[in-house]
Amino acid sequence: MGSKKIVVSKAILDDRNKERITAAAARHGYTVEFFKTNKDAVEALRDAEIAYGMGPKLVKHSPQLKWFCSAAAGVNNILIDGLIASPDVQITCATGSYGVTIAEHTICVLLEMMRQLPTYAEYVRRHEWKQNLIQHSIYGSSILILGTGDIGQSIARRLKAFEPARVIGINRSGRPAGPDFDAVYPSSQLDDHVADAGCVILCMPETKETIGILSAERIATLKETAYVVNVGRGSAICQSALIEALNEGKIAGAALDVLEHEPLEPDDPVWETKNLLLTPHISGQETLQYTLDRNVDIFLEDLENYCAGRPLKYLVDRKLGYQQKHD
Amino acid sequence: MGSKKIVVSKAILDDRNKERITAAAARHGYTVEFFKTNKDAVEALRDAEIAYGMGPKLVKHSPQLKWFCSAAAGVNNILIDGLIASPDVQITCATGSYGVTIAEHTICVLLEMMRQLPTYAEYVRRHEWKQNLIQHSIYGSSILILGTGDIGQSIARRLKAFEPARVIGINRSGRPAGPDFDAVYPSSQLDDHVADAGCVILCMPETKETIGILSAERIATLKETAYVVNVGRGSAICQSALIEALNEGKIAGAALDVLEHEPLEPDDPVWETKNLLLTPHISGQETLQYTLDRNVDIFLEDLENYCAGRPLKYLVDRKLGYQQKHD
Repeated sequence: MGSKKIVVSKAILDDRNKERITAAAARHGYTVEFFKTNKDAVEALRDAEIAYGMGPKLVKHSPQLKWFCSAAAGVNNILIDGLIASPDVQITCATGSYGVTIAEHTICVLLEMMRQLPTYAEYVRRHEWKQNLIQHSIYGSSILILGTGDIGQSIARRLKAFEPARVIGINRSGRPAGPDFDAVYPSSQLDDHVADAGCVILCMPETKETIGILSAERIATLKETAYVVNVGRGSAICQSALIEALNEGKIAGAALDVLEHEPLEPDDPVWETKNLLLTPHISGQETLQYTLDRNVDIFLEDLENYCAGRPLKYLVDRKLGYQQKHD
Repeated sequence: MGSKKIVVSKAILDDRNKERITAAAARHGYTVEFFKTNKDAVEALRDAEIAYGMGPKLVKHSPQLKWFCSAAAGVNNILIDGLIASPDVQITCATGSYGVTIAEHTICVLLEMMRQLPTYAEYVRRHEWKQNLIQHSIYGSSILILGTGDIGQSIARRLKAFEPARVIGINRSGRPAGPDFDAVYPSSQLDDHVADAGCVILCMPETKETIGILSAERIATLKETAYVVNVGRGSAICQSALIEALNEGKIAGAALDVLEHEPLEPDDPVWETKNLLLTPHISGQETLQYTLDRNVDIFLEDLENYCAGRPLKYLVDRKLGYQQKHD
């Protein structure tokens, strides 16, 4: 039998949120142990009933586990076969805590590229007052968003205020995704839209269907003026083809916050790709207080559900590979 | 008597827009001469009736001038006493063509600062995969916009989609400025709001009232977490006080697209200011096609008015020093 114990493993967690978790747990007769790394948590996990945090290691060492709340939005890495021994372990994820921050990142890097701000920054580093680089605009652009969940919707909502010509969403089934998309199509129709896009934004979970979705063939059909932004999972893009397209000037630019292999080794040629705005997987950092607070909110909301014997709200569909909102 | 001649002096003007201007002028019996620089235009200006372009030199050499359409939004530099000999010369400005581009610039640099992207870019230049810098967000922020004309409204409209806590506008009289401001106050009440602002955005014309409006005293009251963005005129800020506040870490950051003296000399210490995101007055460049097209639209709209003997729509109030919308 597991003891009534919750193990929280989070690198970033402030005292106020620790107190919130401790107080809520105590109300239901649970004790909580906090760790900064999964490695430190291994011993405590052996008899934990509930775990909250990041990554597969947290789950692997939890034989008594009944509920794992992933602090991440994407749970591809914990759904690997056999990692969670019992299919009865409930898995939830923190969908809903990353929309705000990842949308702000996305709009920012897209505008940086369109307005050539990295080149202007280079001039400024050299103390050169130079103007007149060609600029582009979200205004009047056609934007394709692959992924229409919380993150995709948060991006679309902000984009719309910039008056793009069109914001098109792509998801598995083509189901509607709120008022900020001019249209939503199923991923089976992606080829009809990718060649017209001024910008392709990827914010999908990693699933069998999304791996390699921006394939070499599709990259080859992109406009010369197109931008690519990936804030989902690195596996969604055929990275070698994208890097080649960038280096050969076949597309205007790309902003990658996620890569096929992270972290990037210091001698990897990807660092020096032409017109690549690279960031080290920081679009959804919990160093943004709001993200951390929302993340803990989500865990605590389902802790109430769990203790009351109600269904968990943020439950991951193991077959789909992500949490789908029940409207 | 001036001949029926229009002189256009614009560094950036594509063939399509040249043709638009030539065709419209021809319909009203005008000839047009195009120049890339004001210096080249001097001779042609001597008997021009209408001039369209940038800067005071264009006006100084136009003794026969009846209408000067400034391609800029701010006309402070052409309102200098004596530069326009006759008060009967009508002056219009291209208010309305810069809102989109300057708003995109503003949102971009604000997010860059809040999310510490310049520091991440520095890591990437060194091939370092480092994370966990503290980030901030427009979401939940309190934002003060000094200037509520086309540019201020375009900024406010986009900001609102990011769900800030509050967007407050400041203008001369405190008159309302559309639905995207939570409140608008007169500049006489600025002191009541500047100390609470998470971000102060300046997008005002240069007038007697706006010179030095963000004074050393007001800079001293800013929060340690505050950001400043100036996309209006450099004269609005006591620059030395701002630079000192940045270097001493008394505010979080500033993004300056305009300076007291432009261009900045290569050896000026301002280049190396801590937490300063400097851009070389490029937030409103006509290298963005939309801006150029709108700018020409505005000239052509008033050309129709001028030729029909109607009042000019974009007329500058010489006393106010800017064009005020007639609602």
